[in-house]
Amino acid sequence: MPTRIPVGILGATGVVGQRFVQLLENHPWFAVAWLAASDRSEGRPYKEAARWRMKTPIPAPVAEMTVSPAKPEAAPRVIFAALDASIAAELEPRFADAGHVVVTNSSALRMRSDVPLVIPEVNPGHIKMLECQAWRHKSNGFVVTNPNCSTIGLVMALAPLQQFGIETVVAVTMQAVSGAGYPGVPSLDILGNVIPYIPKEEEKMEEETLKLLGRLDGSKFIPAAFAMSAHCNRVAVEDGHTESVSIELKKKPATAEIIAAWNEFRSEPQELNLPSAPAQPVRYLESADRPQPRLDVDAGNGMTASVGRLRPCSVLDWKFTVLSHNTIRGAAGAAILNAELLKVRGYFD
Amino acid sequence: MPTRIPVGILGATGVVGQRFVQLLENHPWFAVAWLAASDRSEGRPYKEAARWRMKTPIPAPVAEMTVSPAKPEAAPRVIFAALDASIAAELEPRFADAGHVVVTNSSALRMRSDVPLVIPEVNPGHIKMLECQAWRHKSNGFVVTNPNCSTIGLVMALAPLQQFGIETVVAVTMQAVSGAGYPGVPSLDILGNVIPYIPKEEEKMEEETLKLLGRLDGSKFIPAAFAMSAHCNRVAVEDGHTESVSIELKKKPATAEIIAAWNEFRSEPQELNLPSAPAQPVRYLESADRPQPRLDVDAGNGMTASVGRLRPCSVLDWKFTVLSHNTIRGAAGAAILNAELLKVRGYFD
Amino acid sequence: MPTRIPVGILGATGVVGQRFVQLLENHPWFAVAWLAASDRSEGRPYKEAARWRMKTPIPAPVAEMTVSPAKPEAAPRVIFAALDASIAAELEPRFADAGHVVVTNSSALRMRSDVPLVIPEVNPGHIKMLECQAWRHKSNGFVVTNPNCSTIGLVMALAPLQQFGIETVVAVTMQAVSGAGYPGVPSLDILGNVIPYIPKEEEKMEEETLKLLGRLDGSKFIPAAFAMSAHCNRVAVEDGHTESVSIELKKKPATAEIIAAWNEFRSEPQELNLPSAPAQPVRYLESADRPQPRLDVDAGNGMTASVGRLRPCSVLDWKFTVLSHNTIRGAAGAAILNAELLKVRGYFD
Amino acid sequence: MPTRIPVGILGATGVVGQRFVQLLENHPWFAVAWLAASDRSEGRPYKEAARWRMKTPIPAPVAEMTVSPAKPEAAPRVIFAALDASIAAELEPRFADAGHVVVTNSSALRMRSDVPLVIPEVNPGHIKMLECQAWRHKSNGFVVTNPNCSTIGLVMALAPLQQFGIETVVAVTMQAVSGAGYPGVPSLDILGNVIPYIPKEEEKMEEETLKLLGRLDGSKFIPAAFAMSAHCNRVAVEDGHTESVSIELKKKPATAEIIAAWNEFRSEPQELNLPSAPAQPVRYLESADRPQPRLDVDAGNGMTASVGRLRPCSVLDWKFTVLSHNTIRGAAGAAILNAELLKVRGYFD
Repeated sequence: MPTRIPVGILGATGVVGQRFVQLLENHPWFAVAWLAASDRSEGRPYKEAARWRMKTPIPAPVAEMTVSPAKPEAAPRVIFAALDASIAAELEPRFADAGHVVVTNSSALRMRSDVPLVIPEVNPGHIKMLECQAWRHKSNGFVVTNPNCSTIGLVMALAPLQQFGIETVVAVTMQAVSGAGYPGVPSLDILGNVIPYIPKEEEKMEEETLKLLGRLDGSKFIPAAFAMSAHCNRVAVEDGHTESVSIELKKKPATAEIIAAWNEFRSEPQELNLPSAPAQPVRYLESADRPQPRLDVDAGNGMTASVGRLRPCSVLDWKFTVLSHNTIRGAAGAAILNAELLKVRGYFD
Repeated sequence: MPTRIPVGILGATGVVGQRFVQLLENHPWFAVAWLAASDRSEGRPYKEAARWRMKTPIPAPVAEMTVSPAKPEAAPRVIFAALDASIAAELEPRFADAGHVVVTNSSALRMRSDVPLVIPEVNPGHIKMLECQAWRHKSNGFVVTNPNCSTIGLVMALAPLQQFGIETVVAVTMQAVSGAGYPGVPSLDILGNVIPYIPKEEEKMEEETLKLLGRLDGSKFIPAAFAMSAHCNRVAVEDGHTESVSIELKKKPATAEIIAAWNEFRSEPQELNLPSAPAQPVRYLESADRPQPRLDVDAGNGMTASVGRLRPCSVLDWKFTVLSHNTIRGAAGAAILNAELLKVRGYFD
Repeated sequence: MPTRIPVGILGATGVVGQRFVQLLENHPWFAVAWLAASDRSEGRPYKEAARWRMKTPIPAPVAEMTVSPAKPEAAPRVIFAALDASIAAELEPRFADAGHVVVTNSSALRMRSDVPLVIPEVNPGHIKMLECQAWRHKSNGFVVTNPNCSTIGLVMALAPLQQFGIETVVAVTMQAVSGAGYPGVPSLDILGNVIPYIPKEEEKMEEETLKLLGRLDGSKFIPAAFAMSAHCNRVAVEDGHTESVSIELKKKPATAEIIAAWNEFRSEPQELNLPSAPAQPVRYLESADRPQPRLDVDAGNGMTASVGRLRPCSVLDWKFTVLSHNTIRGAAGAAILNAELLKVRGYFD
Repeated sequence: MPTRIPVGILGATGVVGQRFVQLLENHPWFAVAWLAASDRSEGRPYKEAARWRMKTPIPAPVAEMTVSPAKPEAAPRVIFAALDASIAAELEPRFADAGHVVVTNSSALRMRSDVPLVIPEVNPGHIKMLECQAWRHKSNGFVVTNPNCSTIGLVMALAPLQQFGIETVVAVTMQAVSGAGYPGVPSLDILGNVIPYIPKEEEKMEEETLKLLGRLDGSKFIPAAFAMSAHCNRVAVEDGHTESVSIELKKKPATAEIIAAWNEFRSEPQELNLPSAPAQPVRYLESADRPQPRLDVDAGNGMTASVGRLRPCSVLDWKFTVLSHNTIRGAAGAAILNAELLKVRGYFD
């Protein structure tokens, strides 16, 4: 194996931080070299600081690493970030300012006018906005973000349909508890229950979807123009956000055309053969009762969005269900795929 | 207590049948006098034939009753029915033909042009259609139905809004497992999972909603004219269907007007003080994260629909969440309230 | 209704504190007059300070009460306490010292040599130890405790068997999440899972069981002499601790004698007709698959322990299953029953 | 790859049958060549006959295979069986009689005096009993069984301790729903619940444990002589049986000796490097709260038993928790490992 690029993880002890550690264990390009978390964890071995919740063991070299202070000084240039939004709002600019590449899952900077919000299969061209980031000019640091875990599955299902002219989208989510981190949702709140509210989630889904499916016009993001409404619910599922979606399309494609658009959707990550890119980003399941989180969440190593139940909608044109893995495709895997795209495009040089 | 009217239960051993037995235990007007179920149960004491799943004990007199054959001959005049649709399609007409009053939760006859589909708070006038039922003329028997468990919560939330002119409805359900009966949903299918499909449920929700909110024009039901689309999902909840709803209204009421319309909604069951009528059929909860099945399903002894999270929708006008108890307000309690209305109106004489 | 005794609740906002509020709502003897919780809640209306998790609404008068500082000065004489052990260790003596009656569910003082640990049906005589409490002599204050939620179901099943000579007990618990309070167990830890460890729980079960079933010899508790071993597990259940128990008995009673001992067990609370006393403290269920938390936890308004599956054990003599409600009989209800016994015995005068 | 031995699966559509199909997909020695199930499935493609519940897709060649009648005539010589006990009691002898090797997970013949009940790491020598099977002499057919899913984890934890002299065992299980097959446990029975009863499970655990840890004396199995008691419970877990165990040992080893006995336990499957043998059959987890089904069930590809929480027992000598995968190590994987041992020993020649 050629020398791998050392990377750091900000917020390494949380659920998404652990996913970064897990997914990077055998990554061909990146090697975890630095871990930072809250003050409480600083100076402790990672295996003690993190309450490890993944089903695979902590990678041995990472287990023994000491958790560093969350400061740019001793960190490697490339940083994956999995911080709470309020902390990210303060720390991420500080790292970018100090010359670091910040590939982040946090929501803090996603909607900033000079920060690309990217799904490599959907809007890889948006990374050109990096040319306009002040940090990049000053220190060669920059920030790239990926969308919210509930946005990403929806947008992956919508992207192949853009050719038909998306006019309206109504999406209702049933989101897994891992999306709330750890400790996250108390068990008394979710056992045998549905919580019809996730703070700020609907706002994120609505604005991020339009930014992702919009276009970059010089140094300005022009959001997509369609109407978009989200309802977000929490359910008693560990991993995997399921969404019931109604859409209106300008053109009126046949059922088979839509299904083909999903199944045949390929984009830059597949063409570039990026290490974390799934062979098939979106797959359509023919069974009447799929996708289901328990059975389908790990498709494409958690990087494939599964779609099913395409049928006419008596209000808009079509209804379907989409499922994606919220801590892989919807968080750590999304950021890693972004980093892979950045590397291939030469942004790490 | 004055003499109570003897009633029978068809399909007495299932989940809804057990709810009938439970809810009728101390009913002031009706007394369970006859129980019928499948051939397998016939001739056995009810306590052995039914795998009792209610949290209160089997009422002592019912426990010892012998399960009768599902034939009209020895049955009391008033029958509550909780049969599978395919069996109901055959048995319910047979009972009506023999002069019985069949107050049924089954879907078999709900959409028949001469059968009233009734929620007493919503469309009590629809029972006038009984004048047109051939059974009634022939034998004085007749059939009255209540809607599907997923329809009823939605329609109770919509009824108070009809004054504002309903134009469009999109509803996504997250339905409890008790709606599928017993044994119903295998635990391997629902633990930590969402099933995005319930056979025939979306069709029922769409057509029943329009019939319920439509009007009776002489001897003809004129369905409501608005566009209506349903997505139905099963979640790991025991009792209580939660629904995320978007609606468009012709008039543009203020938030407070809508909330008042819900909270102040009263109808015939409340005016007549029917025994099973909740004081408040619809209540609006102010907390951002309510209604929730675990906490709110038993409101009004399971007969009140709980609404929350009213907020603007960027596609239609408004979004909200509604919750109702699927085996009480959505099944056995619905039928009992129908029977109470029928009795007061003199249909049992 | 005659004047009710004003009572306070220490730790009023937690899961057990809420149960106190709920169970005292219509109590014939006691009326909630004062609520205290952590500094964070102080000065706020209870309805805002408490994240109410009960299925019945917050009692109206309590909802508007302001949460007081956790200091003895303005508190009523009788205090129910539901504090974390570390806080209780400091606060409860302070209240007793200031002349308060502290009826507590906390573990802090349970094993103190001068503090009675009481289940009114099991060892009501142990309250005589109050004569030896220094607080009582000094200020007329005193402390009475009830056992851990996992201890109480077991001990209620064992008490009626003491007549046969208990020699050995092995108990394995499957405990509900409400026993860990709120937020308590993270949902990621318990959905589809078993956690085979609850800190300090096994130690509490073992030592409390022996104190409860021991005797008071003058001013000294003599613990029961039998061997006792506990294994404690957490499972995905909301309310109700289920326990698999093996026991050895000196006398060799017949099956029917043991079942009769349970079903016929009555004690002082039943004789005195205390308001919270269940008519039947222990009931034996004949069905092969009972007791189950979902179906049996609310027996006797949550104050009855349900026992089932009595059968021979090939290691000890007998095996059985016991279930009790962990936040009613195992916490708030236990303390209230203790207070009722104390009142009748004149300790509140 | 050299030619693989064609194998058949009896009961191929159930949960364990599906595990056989999944685990054999890339097996180096065996290739699925024949599938049989109930009459209902006969003649249909496997992908339609089986309601596939595994998380990996149906292996493509198997998906298209036609389900055969459950008759020996056209079946390959080596048969894996996953039949209900009552059907197995009839079919397995018929297949053995016709010259087939029946490697079965069914309980039907486990306790027969001429049928080996084998865990290859524990009692590989017991397969010598095959010399005494009448079928083998007559037709060269024979039957080998593996234990119940709840027995196997326990026995794997006990086997390394036999050197210390096992005198007494009390085991309480918390068993996953997949152990009951599909549809198996209704969701209404297990959501938020514990079922303290599994028909015949305790009897199986007790007698199988003694047979497995006993010895073969010529043509006679001499069961182990220790006292053994089991309590079996069902919990809301998908895969993985957790057991709380107390044991008494003749010798009094130190904690470290017991842990070393588990961690260092190796046996014939490891020495022979059998394809399905885990590198470490038993592993001890140091964390206070492990093993847990969610995190540990897949250790060793589901073939390793995880042990934790070793601590003194105040009734017997030691307490610990053991977890194993009930449909891999406890069913299909167990049978495949048995078949691998048989092949290496020349029984397939």
